Amino acid sequence: MKIVILTLGKTSAAYLRAGMSVYQERLKHYARVEYKELPDVPAKGLTPEVLKEREGEVLMKQLKSDDVVLLLDENGEHFSSRGFAEMLQRRMNSGAKQLVLIIGGAFGFSDAMYARANGKISFSKMTYSHEMIRLLLLEQLYRAHTILKGESYHHD
Amino acid sequence: MKIVILTLGKTSAAYLRAGMSVYQERLKHYARVEYKELPDVPAKGLTPEVLKEREGEVLMKQLKSDDVVLLLDENGEHFSSRGFAEMLQRRMNSGAKQLVLIIGGAFGFSDAMYARANGKISFSKMTYSHEMIRLLLLEQLYRAHTILKGESYHHD
Repeated sequence: MKIVILTLGKTSAAYLRAGMSVYQERLKHYARVEYKELPDVPAKGLTPEVLKEREGEVLMKQLKSDDVVLLLDENGEHFSSRGFAEMLQRRMNSGAKQLVLIIGGAFGFSDAMYARANGKISFSKMTYSHEMIRLLLLEQLYRAHTILKGESYHHD
Repeated sequence: MKIVILTLGKTSAAYLRAGMSVYQERLKHYARVEYKELPDVPAKGLTPEVLKEREGEVLMKQLKSDDVVLLLDENGEHFSSRGFAEMLQRRMNSGAKQLVLIIGGAFGFSDAMYARANGKISFSKMTYSHEMIRLLLLEQLYRAHTILKGESYHHD
């Protein structure tokens, strides 16, 4: 199963880009993970609702009909790191060719994106910046793969 | 109210040190925050239980008798970012002179530390590295202060 991460806009903080590279490099030894930063939708003059619609259109174009799509969403399911790893394993076992994890914009997702998605994940009740969550997602994907391999990176 | 953050061991990842500096600088405009990295307790040859005891002794020496102590702990209370901000405000209003937020070692805290603490906070059901949580805590403290000032950094 290939894992694709979709995000909107470049990562402006150099320290986050550096951290993300660390986990992208490490992940290469475990899984096919493609991290994509799509062009940001200019928010100027748009209401949050219209902005979410436009972002949804940009994201939707990236999806194949048989992709399994999970949204990182504040109202999503909370996993432990081990639970997140087990969920990934279940998706692999179910024969999904491609799992797409999407980090949306500042205001969340459009109705169409929620309708298309196969599930929602929340990393925390707290709100992190949409740039910081990129680092967290990559670290958790790395952690998940070390858990599935029985390696010692993770302590329960 | 002064906020003190206690951690064990240096932050080895340069990208995290860079990110932490960003939020330490920003926080200076809002609050007195002292971030302290205490000498790491060498884990070699120690059981997790003994290691936690030794770490507890190192941390305990830093505490004043009237400090309000909150542990970052996987079994702690989950806050939204706004809820975290409101909790800080309540602590300020209650007349606490110093609030001490403690990030423990890889295996958690000693019984003595749990007994001394006034509360436990969990940032996520997921496990993050004890270095990464330093960045998250500083970002959430910054976010909390912008929420309390009614600034636009945070979107609910």
